[in-house]
Amino acid sequence: MDLGIDVGGTSIKFGLVDASHRITHKSTLTTQAELGFEAMADAIAHEAVRLVEEAQLSINELNSIGVGVPSVVNPHNQHVVFANNLNWRDVDLLGRLRKHLSVPMFIADDADCAALGEVVAGGAQGVKNALMMTFGTGVGGGFIIDGNIYAGGDGFGCEPGHTILHVDGDACTCGRRGCLEAYTSIPALIRQAQQAARAHPDSLLHRLCDHELERLDGRLIFEAYDQNDSVAHSVVDQYHTHIAEGLASLHNAFRPEVMILGGGISARGERLLKPVMEKMVERLFAVDLLGIPRVVVAELGNDAGMVGAARLAQRSR
Amino acid sequence: MDLGIDVGGTSIKFGLVDASHRITHKSTLTTQAELGFEAMADAIAHEAVRLVEEAQLSINELNSIGVGVPSVVNPHNQHVVFANNLNWRDVDLLGRLRKHLSVPMFIADDADCAALGEVVAGGAQGVKNALMMTFGTGVGGGFIIDGNIYAGGDGFGCEPGHTILHVDGDACTCGRRGCLEAYTSIPALIRQAQQAARAHPDSLLHRLCDHELERLDGRLIFEAYDQNDSVAHSVVDQYHTHIAEGLASLHNAFRPEVMILGGGISARGERLLKPVMEKMVERLFAVDLLGIPRVVVAELGNDAGMVGAARLAQRSR
Repeated sequence: MDLGIDVGGTSIKFGLVDASHRITHKSTLTTQAELGFEAMADAIAHEAVRLVEEAQLSINELNSIGVGVPSVVNPHNQHVVFANNLNWRDVDLLGRLRKHLSVPMFIADDADCAALGEVVAGGAQGVKNALMMTFGTGVGGGFIIDGNIYAGGDGFGCEPGHTILHVDGDACTCGRRGCLEAYTSIPALIRQAQQAARAHPDSLLHRLCDHELERLDGRLIFEAYDQNDSVAHSVVDQYHTHIAEGLASLHNAFRPEVMILGGGISARGERLLKPVMEKMVERLFAVDLLGIPRVVVAELGNDAGMVGAARLAQRSR
Repeated sequence: MDLGIDVGGTSIKFGLVDASHRITHKSTLTTQAELGFEAMADAIAHEAVRLVEEAQLSINELNSIGVGVPSVVNPHNQHVVFANNLNWRDVDLLGRLRKHLSVPMFIADDADCAALGEVVAGGAQGVKNALMMTFGTGVGGGFIIDGNIYAGGDGFGCEPGHTILHVDGDACTCGRRGCLEAYTSIPALIRQAQQAARAHPDSLLHRLCDHELERLDGRLIFEAYDQNDSVAHSVVDQYHTHIAEGLASLHNAFRPEVMILGGGISARGERLLKPVMEKMVERLFAVDLLGIPRVVVAELGNDAGMVGAARLAQRSR
């Protein structure tokens, strides 16, 4: 039995994962970044102990504890380099947890953990080379090469959300202009929808938010799209195009066996996959000679990070 | 001793490579695609025998023969999938060579061979994870992961030249719009320079080609740039920007230890590297936290493909 912990900006998820990659016990803490790093780390350790006891185990019966964090992880000292949602900068989370827990511990970027989870037990089971792209508040990604996390040549992780779509295009959170994230994050989609709704006050999009555009969110935008609102349709169609352009580029560049689509929008399943695939296939290099690649939506949903974190002991390098 | 053969659209290069990765004997055949595949393959075999004899060796003293081809290679049967410059489609080059030569033989994409050559003996010696980008008639690339060629999840090779720079931008040879190749190949540079010169008939760029714009080539464009012609400057500056945008994206996505710039333009050395690096660094993800990556120009020049091909026996997977 291993414990996987997925530390996020709004919640921290704990899952006991058995040898078949099933979560047997789970729990959640609300993230309270305002408590500061040390109090948060201590709360994580206490909840880990509590969950293990709930499962009628003792901590030293665990094989490992794996932690996924929304940050680059320094491969030399395992420090969390910078997690802006948590206000953590260069903190030694594992060091702090070890004050309470004496179990082998591993840490990795949450997107890498999710990719590993999907390859071990989700939509890309058994695949050796995969790329998982996560579309949410940000756009991240995790590479699996030869069955293991590939965290870049220096081990500091990869950032496929920060590849270009439009030179000199929309401003990105990273400081560059025109990144994939600047067009395909959920905040970007909302911005695009607000702009379109503003120009069409009679649209369903405008009505669904009771004409208060700051209330538009992903759910309402897709609801208007699913109801064939022409304004929402053009916004979401463009959004699908941008995702397809990004995926086609990343596929051409790395040609993974499988690409996995994760993050909030992956809940749309076929309604996301079908239009994106149609647009992507048109843009692939030599698709007539090389065939149509396999693209799947993430299967583990919010559990992927926990499952992947619990497998870090066996699979990370 | 191994024999490396680099099959190109204009010439076929042969090099005997010793254990220290030095070329001890080399020769060149002019590519005559019009002879057809079988006659060309036979000419390659005969030249291989001739060069080996010139070196006072016999063919069966070779450890291996490695061949680089300007094509995707089918990893299942080693066939050349499609080499448009040679008019080869699904041909069994190794099978044909084996009629004449009984030595272990290996084949790979020429960009992958060049990347392997640079890692084994060139600008990125000893590096485990590298990306070599080649800017020439086309824009290609080869990934090295854990010291070996990474040819994608299905083994059919990677195409980092066909990543997007501008959604719906300039037409690319691959059929998509806006690829890196559509902006940074030499033909793209020439097209951009012709357009700029046409608008400025008094420019040095216009004069250097004796006012016959179809005579503009890479050499004249860089000559005008080096002489501070303002029209050439804006063309080449934009060209550097596009290379930097592409490299920043590929670096963000993949974070290799080293990126190697190859192809014809790499002969410009520091005059290419300096402006491209300046522009690239501004566009990298979290460069303040993660540092400035190592980018080098290819050192082996036209020999990289031969050296890499000669090392396929030891290094390919």
